[in-house]
Amino acid sequence: MEILIIGAAGMIGRKLVRALSDRGQIGGRPITGMVLADIVAPERPDFRGTVETLAADLSEPGVAASLIRSRPDVVFHLAAIVSGEAEADFDKGYRVNLDGTRALFAAIHAAGAERPYHPRVVFTSSIVVFGEPLPEVISDTHCLTPLTSYGTQKAIGELLLADYSRKGFFDGVGIRLPTISIRPGKPNKAASGFFSSILREPLIGEEAILPVSESVRHWFASPRAAVKFILHAAELDTAPLGQQRTITMPGLSATVGEQIEALRRVAGDAATKLIRREPNETIASIIAGWPQGFDARRADALGFEAEKSFDEIIRAHIEDELENRIPERA
Amino acid sequence: MEILIIGAAGMIGRKLVRALSDRGQIGGRPITGMVLADIVAPERPDFRGTVETLAADLSEPGVAASLIRSRPDVVFHLAAIVSGEAEADFDKGYRVNLDGTRALFAAIHAAGAERPYHPRVVFTSSIVVFGEPLPEVISDTHCLTPLTSYGTQKAIGELLLADYSRKGFFDGVGIRLPTISIRPGKPNKAASGFFSSILREPLIGEEAILPVSESVRHWFASPRAAVKFILHAAELDTAPLGQQRTITMPGLSATVGEQIEALRRVAGDAATKLIRREPNETIASIIAGWPQGFDARRADALGFEAEKSFDEIIRAHIEDELENRIPERA
Repeated sequence: MEILIIGAAGMIGRKLVRALSDRGQIGGRPITGMVLADIVAPERPDFRGTVETLAADLSEPGVAASLIRSRPDVVFHLAAIVSGEAEADFDKGYRVNLDGTRALFAAIHAAGAERPYHPRVVFTSSIVVFGEPLPEVISDTHCLTPLTSYGTQKAIGELLLADYSRKGFFDGVGIRLPTISIRPGKPNKAASGFFSSILREPLIGEEAILPVSESVRHWFASPRAAVKFILHAAELDTAPLGQQRTITMPGLSATVGEQIEALRRVAGDAATKLIRREPNETIASIIAGWPQGFDARRADALGFEAEKSFDEIIRAHIEDELENRIPERA
Repeated sequence: MEILIIGAAGMIGRKLVRALSDRGQIGGRPITGMVLADIVAPERPDFRGTVETLAADLSEPGVAASLIRSRPDVVFHLAAIVSGEAEADFDKGYRVNLDGTRALFAAIHAAGAERPYHPRVVFTSSIVVFGEPLPEVISDTHCLTPLTSYGTQKAIGELLLADYSRKGFFDGVGIRLPTISIRPGKPNKAASGFFSSILREPLIGEEAILPVSESVRHWFASPRAAVKFILHAAELDTAPLGQQRTITMPGLSATVGEQIEALRRVAGDAATKLIRREPNETIASIIAGWPQGFDARRADALGFEAEKSFDEIIRAHIEDELENRIPERA
C-alpha cells in the first residue's frame, strides 16, 4: 500500500514516519511507498520501499491534487499552522488550516469522481476545539466552542471530515489529541510549554520555570501515545463510528503537583529541586479556560489506549529521547 | 441606520422586510435605508427610506464587498441553498452556503481594516446542525453532529460567526430556527412538508396527506415567531453571549397528534377530516433521526419568545395568511 503523510516534518510527523518505516505495514498490508510532505522537505527515513519527500503548501492551487497523484491508500493529514501563529495571523491560519484541509478533501473527491478512490483519511484535531462552557469532565457529546482561530479551524475540519465521509468520498477518522507531554526539544513560548519543560529540563539537569499553581489540572498524553493513536486510526474498523467521525482520544487527567510527584519517583529530589516557581498571571489565566479531563469512553471502546500514569509518560520520554539513560538520582 | 438583508426574497426574508418597513426602527434607531439582496431581485417594500433591491450571488467575487459598500449597521444573512438542493449538488451547496458566508464575513473584516466598522450580523442557522446521537431533550451544550451537507454548512457558519465576533471583526448573533410551521404557500416535496400541509391545506378546505404516525414528535415555531427571533437578535445586548454566539431558539415540542387536535379546536372536525393517512416509510425513516425537543434556556434567558401552543400557531397563520378569516366550522 501507498501512504501520504502531510505534516511529516513536525514533531509528531517525524515520529510517525519512523514508526511506519519500522513496522512496514498498516493493518497487515505492507507499505510499498511513502510520500512525505511538509512546508519544509521532511527528512528521508530509513525505509525499504520508495520514498518521495517534498516541500509543499497544501493551500496553493494544484498542490493537493499533486500530493494524491499516486492515489495513496492512507492519507495522514497532520499539517497545521500552530495555535499562536493562527491567532497572530488570522488570514494565514484560515488559508492553511481551513483552505488547505478543504483543498485536500476536494482533491480526493475529484480523484474519486474520475475513477473509484476511497482512501482512509486520518485527521489530527485537538482538545482546543473545546472552550466555554466546560464541565469538569467533558463527555463525547459536548459542544464544540473553540476559543481560538486554530480551534475553530480544527472544529471545521472535523465537520468537513464527517460530511465527506458520509457522502462516501473517503473514509475519515479524526482524532482529538490531548496536550502532548513530554514534548521533546527546547523550551518554547507556548502557554502550555511548562507542562513539558518542568519534566524535560530537570531530566537533563537543567532548571525549569513553573508559572502556575500545582493544583492546575489538565489532560495529557505522550508523543508515543499520540503516534499509537494515529496508527490505530489508520487501521480501525470505521463501521462503529457512524456519522461521528472524530473521537476524543484517551489521556491522563493530572495536576501539575502529580506531574512533579511522578518526576520525584522516577528521577528523585535532585530533579524536582530544579523546578523554580515563578507565578505568571497571564499564563495562569489562559490555562484557567482549558479542559481538565474527559470521559473518553468512545475511544476506549474503539481500542485507543493512553498512559495511565505520569511515571509511564516520563519513562517513555527517557526511553525515546534520552537513550534510556535514567538521570542520576539525588 | 442602514440595513442589509441577504436572502430578502425568501419566505422568512419577505416577512422580515415587511416587519422592518412597518416598524421603521431597530432598537429605537430609525431605519433610513435598506439594501435587499437575493439570488433573484426581492420585491420593493412599501418603505419611506431609501431602498435598493438587487439580484446577487454572494459566492461570486466582489459581490460581498459591493453589498456592504454602504456600511450597513445591521446585516441580516438569511441566504442559503436549501437542504435538499445542497444534498443533491454538493459543490453548489458548499459554494453558496460556506463560501458565500465566508465571503460576507471576510468583506466585513476587510472593510473594518480600512476604517472602523463593526456591524451587528444576524445569521440564521437551523436545528439541522443536530444529528446522531440525540437525547430526547437537547441541551444548549449538546454537540453539533449534522447529518446533511446543509447542516454541516450551517454548523461551519456558526463557528465562523463566533470566531469573527471573538476577534472583534463584527458583532455576530446566530439563531437556530426550529422547523417552521405553518409554512405559507403550496405543498412541496420536502420531507418536512407535511408538518405544515396537514394544517395549511385543511384550513382552506383542501385535502392533505399525513405520511407518518401521529406519535411523531418534533420542534416548531411559526413564521411570525421566526421573524420576531431575527428582530430580537438584531436588538439584543450581546455581552451576555460570551463566546457562544449562536443560540437554539425556543419552540414548541409537539406530536403530529397534538397538531391535529389543535386544528380540531380551531377549525373543527371538517378540517381534520381532510387529513388523509398515507404511510410513507422513506419519510418516516428520515424524520426518525430528527430532534424532538430542546431545553432552550439560554434563549429564554435572553428574551426570545415562541408560541406556547399549536392553537396559537394556527391562529397566527389565519391572521397573517388568510386575512383573519376563520374557516367555516363543521
